[in-house]
Amino acid sequence: MAVRVGVLGATGAVGQRLIQLLDPHPEFEIAALTASEDSAGKTYRQAAKWRVDSPIPDDVADITVSATDPAAVPDDVDLLFSSLPSSVGADVEPAFCEAGYVVSSNSSNARMADDVPLVIPEVNAEHLDLLEVQRDERGWDGALVKNPNCSTITFVPTLAALAEYGLETVHVATLQAVSGAGYDGVSSMEIIDNAIPHIGGEEDKLETESRKLLGEFDGAELSHDEVTVSASCNRIPTIDGHLENVWVETEEELSAAKAAEEMAAYPSIDLRSSPDQLIHVFDAPDRPQPRLDRTLGDGMAVAAGGLQETPDGLQYNCLAHNTIRGAAGASVLNGELLLENGYL
Amino acid sequence: MAVRVGVLGATGAVGQRLIQLLDPHPEFEIAALTASEDSAGKTYRQAAKWRVDSPIPDDVADITVSATDPAAVPDDVDLLFSSLPSSVGADVEPAFCEAGYVVSSNSSNARMADDVPLVIPEVNAEHLDLLEVQRDERGWDGALVKNPNCSTITFVPTLAALAEYGLETVHVATLQAVSGAGYDGVSSMEIIDNAIPHIGGEEDKLETESRKLLGEFDGAELSHDEVTVSASCNRIPTIDGHLENVWVETEEELSAAKAAEEMAAYPSIDLRSSPDQLIHVFDAPDRPQPRLDRTLGDGMAVAAGGLQETPDGLQYNCLAHNTIRGAAGASVLNGELLLENGYL
Amino acid sequence: MAVRVGVLGATGAVGQRLIQLLDPHPEFEIAALTASEDSAGKTYRQAAKWRVDSPIPDDVADITVSATDPAAVPDDVDLLFSSLPSSVGADVEPAFCEAGYVVSSNSSNARMADDVPLVIPEVNAEHLDLLEVQRDERGWDGALVKNPNCSTITFVPTLAALAEYGLETVHVATLQAVSGAGYDGVSSMEIIDNAIPHIGGEEDKLETESRKLLGEFDGAELSHDEVTVSASCNRIPTIDGHLENVWVETEEELSAAKAAEEMAAYPSIDLRSSPDQLIHVFDAPDRPQPRLDRTLGDGMAVAAGGLQETPDGLQYNCLAHNTIRGAAGASVLNGELLLENGYL
Amino acid sequence: MAVRVGVLGATGAVGQRLIQLLDPHPEFEIAALTASEDSAGKTYRQAAKWRVDSPIPDDVADITVSATDPAAVPDDVDLLFSSLPSSVGADVEPAFCEAGYVVSSNSSNARMADDVPLVIPEVNAEHLDLLEVQRDERGWDGALVKNPNCSTITFVPTLAALAEYGLETVHVATLQAVSGAGYDGVSSMEIIDNAIPHIGGEEDKLETESRKLLGEFDGAELSHDEVTVSASCNRIPTIDGHLENVWVETEEELSAAKAAEEMAAYPSIDLRSSPDQLIHVFDAPDRPQPRLDRTLGDGMAVAAGGLQETPDGLQYNCLAHNTIRGAAGASVLNGELLLENGYL
Repeated sequence: MAVRVGVLGATGAVGQRLIQLLDPHPEFEIAALTASEDSAGKTYRQAAKWRVDSPIPDDVADITVSATDPAAVPDDVDLLFSSLPSSVGADVEPAFCEAGYVVSSNSSNARMADDVPLVIPEVNAEHLDLLEVQRDERGWDGALVKNPNCSTITFVPTLAALAEYGLETVHVATLQAVSGAGYDGVSSMEIIDNAIPHIGGEEDKLETESRKLLGEFDGAELSHDEVTVSASCNRIPTIDGHLENVWVETEEELSAAKAAEEMAAYPSIDLRSSPDQLIHVFDAPDRPQPRLDRTLGDGMAVAAGGLQETPDGLQYNCLAHNTIRGAAGASVLNGELLLENGYL
Repeated sequence: MAVRVGVLGATGAVGQRLIQLLDPHPEFEIAALTASEDSAGKTYRQAAKWRVDSPIPDDVADITVSATDPAAVPDDVDLLFSSLPSSVGADVEPAFCEAGYVVSSNSSNARMADDVPLVIPEVNAEHLDLLEVQRDERGWDGALVKNPNCSTITFVPTLAALAEYGLETVHVATLQAVSGAGYDGVSSMEIIDNAIPHIGGEEDKLETESRKLLGEFDGAELSHDEVTVSASCNRIPTIDGHLENVWVETEEELSAAKAAEEMAAYPSIDLRSSPDQLIHVFDAPDRPQPRLDRTLGDGMAVAAGGLQETPDGLQYNCLAHNTIRGAAGASVLNGELLLENGYL
Repeated sequence: MAVRVGVLGATGAVGQRLIQLLDPHPEFEIAALTASEDSAGKTYRQAAKWRVDSPIPDDVADITVSATDPAAVPDDVDLLFSSLPSSVGADVEPAFCEAGYVVSSNSSNARMADDVPLVIPEVNAEHLDLLEVQRDERGWDGALVKNPNCSTITFVPTLAALAEYGLETVHVATLQAVSGAGYDGVSSMEIIDNAIPHIGGEEDKLETESRKLLGEFDGAELSHDEVTVSASCNRIPTIDGHLENVWVETEEELSAAKAAEEMAAYPSIDLRSSPDQLIHVFDAPDRPQPRLDRTLGDGMAVAAGGLQETPDGLQYNCLAHNTIRGAAGASVLNGELLLENGYL
Repeated sequence: MAVRVGVLGATGAVGQRLIQLLDPHPEFEIAALTASEDSAGKTYRQAAKWRVDSPIPDDVADITVSATDPAAVPDDVDLLFSSLPSSVGADVEPAFCEAGYVVSSNSSNARMADDVPLVIPEVNAEHLDLLEVQRDERGWDGALVKNPNCSTITFVPTLAALAEYGLETVHVATLQAVSGAGYDGVSSMEIIDNAIPHIGGEEDKLETESRKLLGEFDGAELSHDEVTVSASCNRIPTIDGHLENVWVETEEELSAAKAAEEMAAYPSIDLRSSPDQLIHVFDAPDRPQPRLDRTLGDGMAVAAGGLQETPDGLQYNCLAHNTIRGAAGASVLNGELLLENGYL
């Protein structure tokens, strides 16, 4: 029987993607949608400016949107997917957890908190058990798990594939799609025939979240990895798909050929939304490209290419679909992991 | 009295920019235009698919295009600006030099030759005297001077401004405009809603040309700088203006504030096409941006911004107009330097 | 058992779409791929610069490409889909028909020939029987059927839905995607931050093909409809999906509401590639939009919206996916009609 | 001596263009800038998110922004240029006029009022004298003159050039740039790889404003022209420059050649911002294009092309720079006309 789930912040860009992914999902059944006060009481069709390129599912369209408040969500909903603005998330996510809901959240608040697992299931599924610590400390019946920022998710799997060689220094330049900023985040006058070499707070997310993701959990405490990450983030005129140029210096010598092999061999995980092949490695030096490769593995794979040796290490490019692998799909996958590991 | 000049490869994208810059130039007078055999004998208006955003100058429109052959260019033309495909340039530029013409070339052939000066006047004007060596060795009455690749020109002035701190390692990711590939270089289906993480041969140009430009000429030989440059080149959907993310490690400690000061203070040169201020340093972290900042200094300035310290050095962004500062304007400026230094 | 089919001109943009549609098709089995002499003898993987956003099917990738010549195509192939340049098509399509092959062609040659059916199955399936006349006159064992130009296919279904009111005058302005010109048809410098108010030959195609499609076939001869169509064609910076603004004057009075009803009720046809609902009518005045609505009905539906009355008739907008509904899918659908009607 | 002028709504996209045009203007001197309450008291540099592609003029940057209120604007300012949101304009423009200021407004409020002249100086300068009626009726010392909507300004000059042939019916499809909606008017996710076939209220503006502009003023009353205009408006991914496809039916027969001649011969007016040649007529059928032709006549000219005869009249395309000719430049030009005609 399907788990009854809800979406917090269901009308936004990521909320719409969540619905697109959850509606056909055999393990989950959409039973609650929340949004801001303005939308509460309307049907989802009225409340959402639906902008995904598949029609709004009929059964979802007729759901009445509730306020984003534990009192407004039915008790028989077990799992909530959250894509709230971080300032809202910081307020209400703990309230939902306290009220007993398990929350798989894409919002950026609390990602770096000591007792909140930040998880990419193929990379660090074992961090999920930090929830035991969380429940102990906070006295929650519910639980809060986070997925990382979209630009972090894009490159961390490739780093994880190389971790055994000893990651020392990483430089990463991102070319990020406009959907990463939400529906109204980037105006057309800002970005047509242009690029913006700054995304507020983004560089810090790549630098700190990657260290947490690559860290070790000993059952009690999570230590962060020591790798030094220096990021430079750019917005470019693409709709979906974050492309990243990565330079890595490792302790042990690592050839481009060996790195390609490690990436291609990096295991996926046996969850419904995880792709069979996590990292697709292209031989062609001009791939991956956002428009051509963002839907690999139904948008849940990572693509890599252009691997080459440099004077001080390795250079390559990687790509992932920022609103699927990097946001909505990441949260759904964490939901599947929560179910698999008995947290629901 | 104005120097009579010609343009080799006058119908291409850079050729058109050369004409746009040379037509109103008080020191130069356009007296010859060459193109491929197909165009020879036609008026320039007939031969060129004019695509610059100012109308084709009337007097230039009526010039009869010649073949790209020394025999077809009048003897009283003293200076030739060349924007030929490199394979063509490699053949015909030496023939023009041997026939006594001085050639200021944007073509990529021979840029790394030991006796060919590769010059950005504000950075290494003194390299021009390598022409003495060139004439000695080759027995030419003419001379061949090169400007660097557009993506090289964009970041080398900023490196030159920091050189006294001892450049050790540079990582650079470029976000390059489509005009850099010429009029038909990038198809619309390749680049709309997309980015391409590879430009053939481009990475090597940034890595080798920058070392030559930052090298020292002792009057007899040119030594290349020892800095290690590792480049990653991307094409994005912008028309004009290359944006670059740069990380620099220096021997001496260098704060972001000090680096900004050095860049802003880096001297321009007293030539007509050189801007009063060579490097504009923005405080706003989201600048420079291609569409807003590519025309600074009539497209001849370099813009920098986002300066910040990283664990291993400095990070910043820079930008220049790739077909003006990075190509046509660079050749015109070298023409002015040749005139100033008595090579015409 | 599946019909063995081939693709003439398999490496181009429409050829790639044909393969994407034919590979999973249960009634057809790809058995031959042809291209220009340069590609003959290579595997399809080597010959094609694959640019569709799904990976190249493995079994297709290994097919050896043949020359576009009846002698080079196996005899047991029954049906050929053609997306050749029209100048090539004009030469070789008749040769294939004479050699006994049935050809469903997207190429623009011969579309207006008296004995060549030009067919949109949902609109004028009965025109297919013009093949009897064709075979009689030309003595062919094979047959040649054409689908219209992509911009014609977009608006003719909506006109057909209104035809009973007496079509008198149509004005249509098109906003066409770059994929309609083929992979290298529109350079990025031509179209980024731009629009081009002219597409060579396109206006004439909308004006003449629509009259043929709406004409009547009496079993012997095809008469063209008398409607006056005046088209103005624009290229805009979109990848896929032609949007059209249409004004229609009819003999009988026709309200916007009635027109919407007629369009929504216009029947589809019972063929695999035909959508359940041929014309989707939007209430929202800002729909249809290329990026949001081009994949309706797996790219085989037509979308309409913005219906309103004007002083002299009716105004509305329509949209279809130009390389699926407007090209590759149109040819496949005609192939299904040929099979259904016993021509294979 | 220069007239002291102010800009109402100085921080918006059109406000910035106004400052860019007024700063170097020899007849006008910027003496006041107003904006919303949030900005009042700040320097213009602090208040405006400057996004024009030339640096903010230094002297303007230091002006203290006032509230948009007659009491806050110095009395020695004679002329105000207004680019307020229409709801604000409707409230405050009359207050400024009552307080004695002459207002040249780009805001859409009151454009169709009987006693408000709607003026394109080259087309209907004589309508300005409607101000006598306005002052009589309203008892104002000041005065209010309007320029039309950007999409109206683009095609009305071409209609005016053909008016003597008797305009009967006009169909017009617009392809409009995003800057027409203001800085945040169109989000990038709405428009990249897309087009939107609807702009709220825009069709009505083309239809009604054009009839007023082409009407006759007999010294007491303004009669509107009888031409029927039916417009369909589209937003496309261009930054600046509205392109329009126009069909015209005239009483008298009119060949394409004759129409081209009439347009090219249509007189400009002897005001500083009016171009020498008002309408540039291109022979090349693929011109005008937004990126190539929007800056003709410093952005104040109109371009036309593609003239051809159709079964029921004439078809052509036209283009103008929507934020210069179509907005800020239009208001400045009306300011020059007010000065010339003694209204200041």
